[in-house]
This record gives sequence, C-alpha cells and structure tokens, in this order.
Amino acid sequence: MVSEALAKEALKRLIETGKKVDPVMEKYLLRHVSEAFKEPVLYPIRVGGKRIRPALTLLSAEAAGGPQDKALPAAAAVELTHNYSLILDDIIDHSEKRRGQPTVWKKYGLSIAILVAVHYRESISEALNDTPDPPRFTEILTETIKVLVEGERLDILFEQAGRLDEPYVVEHRYKVVTLDDYMDMVRKKTSVLIRTACMFGAMSVGAPEDLVNALGEYGEALGIAFQVGDDILDLFGKEELTGKKVGQDIVEHKLGNVVVALALDELSGSDRDELLSILRKDVVTYDDAKCAIKLIEEKTSARERAEKLRDEWVKKAIESLAPLPDTEAKRLLEGLAYFVSIREY
Amino acid sequence: MVSEALAKEALKRLIETGKKVDPVMEKYLLRHVSEAFKEPVLYPIRVGGKRIRPALTLLSAEAAGGPQDKALPAAAAVELTHNYSLILDDIIDHSEKRRGQPTVWKKYGLSIAILVAVHYRESISEALNDTPDPPRFTEILTETIKVLVEGERLDILFEQAGRLDEPYVVEHRYKVVTLDDYMDMVRKKTSVLIRTACMFGAMSVGAPEDLVNALGEYGEALGIAFQVGDDILDLFGKEELTGKKVGQDIVEHKLGNVVVALALDELSGSDRDELLSILRKDVVTYDDAKCAIKLIEEKTSARERAEKLRDEWVKKAIESLAPLPDTEAKRLLEGLAYFVSIREY
Repeated sequence: MVSEALAKEALKRLIETGKKVDPVMEKYLLRHVSEAFKEPVLYPIRVGGKRIRPALTLLSAEAAGGPQDKALPAAAAVELTHNYSLILDDIIDHSEKRRGQPTVWKKYGLSIAILVAVHYRESISEALNDTPDPPRFTEILTETIKVLVEGERLDILFEQAGRLDEPYVVEHRYKVVTLDDYMDMVRKKTSVLIRTACMFGAMSVGAPEDLVNALGEYGEALGIAFQVGDDILDLFGKEELTGKKVGQDIVEHKLGNVVVALALDELSGSDRDELLSILRKDVVTYDDAKCAIKLIEEKTSARERAEKLRDEWVKKAIESLAPLPDTEAKRLLEGLAYFVSIREY
Repeated sequence: MVSEALAKEALKRLIETGKKVDPVMEKYLLRHVSEAFKEPVLYPIRVGGKRIRPALTLLSAEAAGGPQDKALPAAAAVELTHNYSLILDDIIDHSEKRRGQPTVWKKYGLSIAILVAVHYRESISEALNDTPDPPRFTEILTETIKVLVEGERLDILFEQAGRLDEPYVVEHRYKVVTLDDYMDMVRKKTSVLIRTACMFGAMSVGAPEDLVNALGEYGEALGIAFQVGDDILDLFGKEELTGKKVGQDIVEHKLGNVVVALALDELSGSDRDELLSILRKDVVTYDDAKCAIKLIEEKTSARERAEKLRDEWVKKAIESLAPLPDTEAKRLLEGLAYFVSIREY
C-alpha cells in the first residue's frame, strides 16, 4: 500500500535521481557556443529546478527493466525541453521572476533570451541524436513540442483580459472555459511532456511496447493530477510553503485554472457575474484575487471537486503501472503519484 | 564563360525551381496544428520570399548527379530554417514590415509569433526525418542553427546604439568592428545556411564526400558574396530597384555592414569621429544616413573595396565548382554566382 512516508521518500529519491541529468545537459549546451554566450546559456539550468521530468525518465527506464544510465540522453532532452518552454513562457507572460531569480529575458534582455531559447532547442536535437533510435525519439518529441505550443496558445486564449497589443489574442479569446476545454489545455500544456518523459525512459532501454504505453499512461495521468494540484495550491496554498503569492492565476486573468473553471460552471446570477468581473478587470490586484477566492470557497464546491478530480487522476496513474514488474522503481513511481495528492508545495 | 545573360537566366530558373518546395513545407507545417492556428502558421511562407536557399539545395542535388526530388525534404528543412530565423529576427529587430507586409509579431502579436516560430522549428525536424540519413542531417542543421544564433548575437553587439533595456547588449557591445570581425559575423549569420543548403542537396542524392564539400565551399563563398553585395546595395542601391530605403543599416546603428566597417578602417581624425557620431546617435534619421553615405563616398574607397571583396568571393564560389561534372545545373550555379556581382536589387 502507498503511504505518506513512502510518498515523501519517493520525492526525495526522485530529486536525487534528477541531479544526474545536469552534467549531461551541460555537455549539449556547451557544444558550439562562444565564450561570451556561455553564461546566459547555462543560467536557466543553474538557477535551479527540481528535475522531476528527467528523474521520471530515469526511473521509468529502471522500472522497465534497464539501467538508468542508458536513458540519460533522453532525460537531458526532456529537461532541456522543459527549460526551453519556460524561457519562452516567461517572455510570453512578461514574468520577471522564476525560482526566486530574474527570468532570462529580465536578466539579459529579450534578444538574448530568444537566442538562448533557440540554442536550447538545438541542444535537444543533439541529445536525441544520442538515443538508441534518433528518428523515433525525434518524431515523438517533435509532436510533443507542437502539442505544448497548442497548450500554451489555449492557455493564453483562456485569459480574460490583457494583451490588447496582441491582435490574434484579442480576436480569439475564449468567453467561457468548460471543464472539457480545461482538460484539453492541461493535457497539452503540462501532461504531454511528462507522458513523453516516462515513455522515453522505457524506450531508452528497449522495453516492449506494452510497458512503454503503460508508462506513457502513467505520465499522462500524473501530469493531469499534478497540474490540477498546482491550480488548487495557486488559490488555497500556504504562501510560507509554496513560496508563491496566493491567487497568481487570478491576477494573470486566467480561466486556465481548474478551480476557477469549476466555480464558474457552478455559479449563476450575480455571484457568477462578480467572479467574471474580477477576472476581466484590466488590472487585477492580489486583494481582488482574495475576494474571488473567498467567493469561490463560500459559494461553490469547486475546491472539493478539484481535489476529487486530482485524486482520481492519481489513482489512474497508479493503476497504469499494473503491467510493470514489481520493483523498487515501480514503488517509487507509485509513491510519487501519491505525493501529488498530499503535497502542500 | 559566364555572361550577364546566363546570370539572369540562372536567377529565373532558380526562382522557378524554388517554388517546388512550397507544398512540401506546407505538409510539415500542417502536421499537428489546430484549425485556428493554421493561418498564423502559414502566413510567413505565404507572404512571399524568393526560395533561393531551397532552390540551391535542389540544383546542388542535380549538379551532384541525382534527381532534384530526392532533396525536397532537405530543401524544405532549409527554407523552414530561413523563415524560422526571420520570424525571430523581426522580433529582435522590432521590424514591422517584411516583403512589404506586416511581420508575424506585428500582425498577430508577440506571443503568437513566438509560438509560430517554435512550430516552425518542429516542422524542420519532421522534414529532416524524411531525409536519407536523419541523424547526420540533424547534426549538421543543429550546428548550423547554433552558428546562426552566434551570428545574430554578433550582429546585435555590432550595433552602436539602442537596446538600452537589454543588459547583456549594453555590457557586451563592440566598440570597434574590424574586417575580420565582420567576416566572422557574415559567415555565421548568412553564409552557413547557404553552405548547408548546398551540402544538403549533394547529401540527399548520396554524392561522394568531395562533391558534398565542393558544393559546401561554393555555398559558403556565395553566401559571403551575397551579404557583401547586400551591404553595398543598402548604402548605394537605387530605391526604385531594391524597394528598400537607402541607409537602413545606418539607421539601425549597424557596424555590421562591410562598407561601414571598411570606411571606419580607412578614416581617421575628424572624419572618423563624424561617421561614428552619426552611427552612435540615439535616433538616426534617413537624412543622417545620407550624410554618412556622402562622407563614405567622398572620403574613402570603401565602396570600391567592398565591390572588389564581393567579386573575389564570387570568383571563389565559381572555382569551388571545379570538381563537379559539366552539367546544366552546374552552369546555373555558376550563373547565379555571377549574378551576385551584377545585381542591382
């Protein structure tokens, strides 16, 4: 049975495992780079990050029966992809801080941030070239990144105000976001890369198709559970644990938060109008966000429904692992899924 | 012997040849794309472009002894790479028009332009997966794009004013740009992709190493000649032929124009100070640019030296083709190089 103690142990082991990928990422990032460009190129990965995705690749390799080391190039490709998307997301969202430090564009300027992102993308292809089957890995990662683009596009279009200087966004903005829209966005924006991370582990050690698929399903479910959990923490987390201000998504006008989407689905009349009017303000303050959160807590069961949704996906993730042989790696993957249900940061 | 008539015929044939690549690019761009994203994704290639690079790939394939069609995926990868770099360069340079139409960021907004660029990069990998040796083609294109990044970084750092909101640029800006610096930048920013375009043609038809290298050298020399010619036209072209305002590079504070670099190298004392003071003005007008151009014409031989430099590289390009068998394709490649010497637009 999965316990809280195992869940915490699993997270610790996962974070230790993820560290192995750093020298591998650096190896690819330092190919074909001039002296004066090294600092901005290494900055994004030196600032930190928990390396959850590459750790999932390495543990998936082990769970599928092979040695972790065979999956290092694929793990590096996955974590470079994650950082590539963060560099660009921070530009798109005008975010000035990440992991407590200035974002790449804020520290070096927009031009250099774009050039760093392009350099990351090439390092991804270099890493994929060291996997056992470069065309197959490339095909999957290429589709993954195109899907990430689509997820980011939807997330932007779910915003309820802002970006008045962006003609496409103004024209295509969503008026209502249903739970189906939300799930579609989350699969694309968050879940697909975690799915790929897990599949890449199994593929790197030549695992049979059914194990690759089982780990892919695990990753997809875990990704959804993780994002739903993240949305809940955004509105109801403790700032001293998460290190983030409560209500950030509301401040950023997002309907792409499951709790907000569920609340709007439940509310009607003046309460619904009130919540929407906050989300659509040109400038939303953190005090506005607190009002919205209070309204959601008092007038809806959105929080409980979101928690239930998260836990259902955690359960699906654990069940997906059934075809895998019983190993310590499998136990850790189960523990990690359980951790998503109980995490407070 | 290469004549002016052949040169013009070669350009015409080149442009016809390049058109073959459009449906191939569209095929990759339309993979994994949602309905509402198709328009911005197709916009950059529908706006126009002469398709010189993919035409070079196809003609190189033919010159190396194989059918052009075998090189279509590689040609598509090359032209997608060119468009990918233009979408991002236009963001970096705040350019609002390209080919007489709004640039992608101007038309759709910054966020969507970045997402379109990312989508292009994935389509490149999809195209490379259809070449005869995906890992080898990927290795070369990955290095090519990293070198393009470096070329763009240098070009930005050669600017003599502006970008005060970009800490890295302010800190690393070049004070002097020598001819060596210029040549290094041009090889990286322009020449490397043309080199890759030509090599990819030969590689696509399984040509022997010496022919691949000969075409690579041709492409590199052609790229340098082309860029030097472009710089000359920027300052001394006829607006009614080029369709561009004279002195754009000076307005953009660029030392990355060979004529400017050569003029500064030749000038001393108050003339040099005057030219530098124009280049370093916070806002340079087209009238300022005219003053600078007049000074360069009257006080230096920079124009003549630049023309000589261009013609030397044209000669090198033509000589590089010596190992290739005598075919019509070879004759067209020679004609095209010659065209670079005489072009007025």
